Amino acid sequence: MKFCSNCGAILTLRIPDGDNAPRHVCDTCNTIHYRNPKLIVGCIPVWDGKVLLCRRGIEPRHGLWTLPAGFMELNETVSAGALRETLEEANARVEIEQLYALYSLPHIGQIYMLFRARLLDLDFSAGHETLDARLFSEAEIPWDEIAFATVRNTLRHYFGDATRGEFRFHMGTIEPMSRNVSDATYRQPGSSA
Amino acid sequence: MKFCSNCGAILTLRIPDGDNAPRHVCDTCNTIHYRNPKLIVGCIPVWDGKVLLCRRGIEPRHGLWTLPAGFMELNETVSAGALRETLEEANARVEIEQLYALYSLPHIGQIYMLFRARLLDLDFSAGHETLDARLFSEAEIPWDEIAFATVRNTLRHYFGDATRGEFRFHMGTIEPMSRNVSDATYRQPGSSA
Repeated sequence: MKFCSNCGAILTLRIPDGDNAPRHVCDTCNTIHYRNPKLIVGCIPVWDGKVLLCRRGIEPRHGLWTLPAGFMELNETVSAGALRETLEEANARVEIEQLYALYSLPHIGQIYMLFRARLLDLDFSAGHETLDARLFSEAEIPWDEIAFATVRNTLRHYFGDATRGEFRFHMGTIEPMSRNVSDATYRQPGSSA
Repeated sequence: MKFCSNCGAILTLRIPDGDNAPRHVCDTCNTIHYRNPKLIVGCIPVWDGKVLLCRRGIEPRHGLWTLPAGFMELNETVSAGALRETLEEANARVEIEQLYALYSLPHIGQIYMLFRARLLDLDFSAGHETLDARLFSEAEIPWDEIAFATVRNTLRHYFGDATRGEFRFHMGTIEPMSRNVSDATYRQPGSSA
């Protein structure tokens, strides 16, 4: 961030009065440009105990498998974003059941929010940024070809919970190179609206 | 957003190739400037059945009461952000117990994430953007002077759940002027890491 997006002047990096962290400040139009983490929302689409994964057709991690998920748009809800990404990446229609996993990735300013979801039909297919979309049982998951630590952890929790017969809520932090992964489990948020 | 924060050129609002929504595009340095929702994280600090509220010393909603919460910073986890805001706004130390409420406010591109938390001591006080910090029982809550719909809904759920003796997870959408509020409840008792 070098120029003011409001007036085009050159920005200064300094701690504003009353603040405690350096910010990109425009001294011409007096705007402070904050940088905030980005939310990634997606689904764990399930059919008959199998999970729908997408093989990535774009960088990063081209060719590796992931859950359908992506950056949340400005004017949608978290669940609408998760449904949209599932439709865009796998042409799949789901019903959202539960907020299942929440991961913070502080080193890259990202927050992952993944929902357990019921796949409504088998009429899915690869979206335009996806090479392949396929259902996997636990034994079939290509563990060495999973694109992201968030997805790997979520899948491990999912199949563990499915075996135990109780789905819990998982919250954790993922740091670079998996040096420090904290990952806590919370009891049951099955829906009861 | 009028100027490219990367090169200072004037931006164009158009749908990029392969996209489906208008974006702020720089045709000089070929950067697409996405706009993303902002995360607000905070706590419901509880002591002996009472909830700690802060009277806002800044706009918007100056003078009204709120839970300690604020915009998440770039390089922190969701729970670290909630702890930081609680310390900044109420000089209060808490232990986080549960993700309790998740609200989408699509009309202003905000997501609220509020954690149930145990106040660790009574040595709290108003932070520099706060006029007053005080514990309230359900009967004492100033319902007509609550700053935000997210906070009002969360407090109503909290005291309802406390009465029933079971804390659930609440997810909802808040739209302008409370014309349409959807608010669902999910089972999710305390942590069991």
